[in-house]
Amino acid sequence: MELKFLDSKSSSLSEKAALVARTKSSPFSSFEHSVGVKFSQEFSSCRGVFTKASYLSSNGTFMPKRAISSVDKEKTAAENYFYQISTNGPGSSLFSRNIGVLDACDDEYGGVVVDPDRLPVNPDAFAPMLQFSLSHWKMKGKKGIWLKLPLERSELVPVAVKEGFEYHHAERGYVMLTYWIPGGPCMLPSNATHQVGVGGFVINDKNEVLVVQEKFYAPSFADVWKIPTGFILESEEIYTGAVREVKEETGVDTEFVEVIAFRHAHNLDFDKSDLFFVCMLKPLSAQIKVDDLEIQAAKWMPLVEFVAQPLIQEDGLFKKIIDICIARLGKHYCGLLPRQVVSKFDDRPSCLYYNVLDTGNVNCNGN
Amino acid sequence: MELKFLDSKSSSLSEKAALVARTKSSPFSSFEHSVGVKFSQEFSSCRGVFTKASYLSSNGTFMPKRAISSVDKEKTAAENYFYQISTNGPGSSLFSRNIGVLDACDDEYGGVVVDPDRLPVNPDAFAPMLQFSLSHWKMKGKKGIWLKLPLERSELVPVAVKEGFEYHHAERGYVMLTYWIPGGPCMLPSNATHQVGVGGFVINDKNEVLVVQEKFYAPSFADVWKIPTGFILESEEIYTGAVREVKEETGVDTEFVEVIAFRHAHNLDFDKSDLFFVCMLKPLSAQIKVDDLEIQAAKWMPLVEFVAQPLIQEDGLFKKIIDICIARLGKHYCGLLPRQVVSKFDDRPSCLYYNVLDTGNVNCNGN
Repeated sequence: MELKFLDSKSSSLSEKAALVARTKSSPFSSFEHSVGVKFSQEFSSCRGVFTKASYLSSNGTFMPKRAISSVDKEKTAAENYFYQISTNGPGSSLFSRNIGVLDACDDEYGGVVVDPDRLPVNPDAFAPMLQFSLSHWKMKGKKGIWLKLPLERSELVPVAVKEGFEYHHAERGYVMLTYWIPGGPCMLPSNATHQVGVGGFVINDKNEVLVVQEKFYAPSFADVWKIPTGFILESEEIYTGAVREVKEETGVDTEFVEVIAFRHAHNLDFDKSDLFFVCMLKPLSAQIKVDDLEIQAAKWMPLVEFVAQPLIQEDGLFKKIIDICIARLGKHYCGLLPRQVVSKFDDRPSCLYYNVLDTGNVNCNGN
Repeated sequence: MELKFLDSKSSSLSEKAALVARTKSSPFSSFEHSVGVKFSQEFSSCRGVFTKASYLSSNGTFMPKRAISSVDKEKTAAENYFYQISTNGPGSSLFSRNIGVLDACDDEYGGVVVDPDRLPVNPDAFAPMLQFSLSHWKMKGKKGIWLKLPLERSELVPVAVKEGFEYHHAERGYVMLTYWIPGGPCMLPSNATHQVGVGGFVINDKNEVLVVQEKFYAPSFADVWKIPTGFILESEEIYTGAVREVKEETGVDTEFVEVIAFRHAHNLDFDKSDLFFVCMLKPLSAQIKVDDLEIQAAKWMPLVEFVAQPLIQEDGLFKKIIDICIARLGKHYCGLLPRQVVSKFDDRPSCLYYNVLDTGNVNCNGN
């Protein structure tokens, strides 16, 4: 769909801008934060004022008249526009009621971000205001509408869905809904697409690998000794997550050495993708303290025994990862090291992972 | 919170199992798909039957009697349990009404996954059924409850929130809500955490780099020539995404060479993290056809000019990435290559990215 859209001669600039917002990525792009989800900051300078209007009724079709007490001429532009509202329920009685455009901010891609902190207190007022706002935004040629509804305003969710909003993403305390005015496929940026996991390959001076058996493993793999693994936590670094997981599962302290390889897989939990980073870690302690709620057993296992496990030998992925780790031990391989960098383009610190160029070890023979 | 939880002596096995489900990662774990979001498959073998019951009223507190016409003894266990339901609205009248536990499946971590295809048709029946179900699941010692509500059943969202459910994640057509029965911090696995972007470093035989200026860039960076970048699409490979982005923005066909480095940053769009992979690509064509809706200009720029741009020279991230690319051109650096691998542990193909070990080029001098 997207490729087709790109070829379309009729695509407007705003549609394209929304598409750009969906596909552009840091650090070489300015489209970070483009979709206006940093509400607390963004709304500091865009407080709107509700407008008032009175209406004439005709079989459920209301024709807004020019606002009598409008204080925001731009926002009442939609009042020259016929629009249909439901005649069911208390929210449909608009005579002598205040109505106006929802308090919102324009984004830089021709879209609108509704202020979640200034939604109407009265839920009955929300439906007509949303209808009125959509008419207004349509008339102004707006494209994507972002509507963030806090958990405590969940009664507004079915109202928004009834008006044609779809879910975009949700976190524990809110759901974000969107409305794509131009019709056709929604070109707004997508939700997060990936989980990120880490595995710790820890080997000591005796060529023993730190391995675990998990309590909740599938029965057919229950006897396999594997390296400790886990998802990284929110905003956690890969190198920190690997050290944490090993400590939690085995009690062993380690030091991050390198990212050895990573695996990219698709259609996993919640139909999302997964990036799994294999990290080589250096042990700083030896004593094992098994996390007995999660882990069945943990031990230091001779590397040759670890590799010789039939399920490892027969498995394309396991076998390759262990081959790489062994090559790394023999200094025939080099992984990636993180370095803190700051870019002026987004003014934030981040980690760049790359080979050990800085050590002068340009032949990548390890260290 | 999590670390504290891990140390807690009072943590139950089921709580721990849920925690495990949250932090375990492929490919070394069997916890993929652990949270029961593959409903269509999972529900094929767990169709339940609604139960019937009659009730005695006492000031809004209903004491379920033993079911008279129960057809599912397990599901009526909760009927010995006092529970409170709202006396407001039509859903509160339980006399002579059918009520039962929502159709659901147990997951393997002590949780319950409600069947989104068998929610009660009558929305008024949902509130008492949900209350009844929660009482039932609590009595059975269940932990995490997964409630997936399709977009067309959005009227049930506020009902679930009123009962204490929180949002977990959402995609266009549904919102997933969860309820953590044990109280305390919710230990269910988290939503996707990362966006994934790619950048294409394309250099030709004349030492010219393929660069673009974007139309929607921040004014202070408008004059910078940068490499083409973008987010990868859902389930797209990194190497495919880089080639696609370059083609879309510049019209130039390329061939993937290596992942040179990657950047990990946090708290970007929707407060998610970002992994950005810099890819070296080999041009297969030279003629530029600018995507004039998205791109201001594109050209082949001499490498020395590209590097000499003041904003590049002054930028910690840009400068380092270009240094790495130049080292790679001089064969003093090696990146990562993807290889298709299949693991028996999840029986799916995936890409493992690692250094060019297979070529026998163990000194990583490039190719």
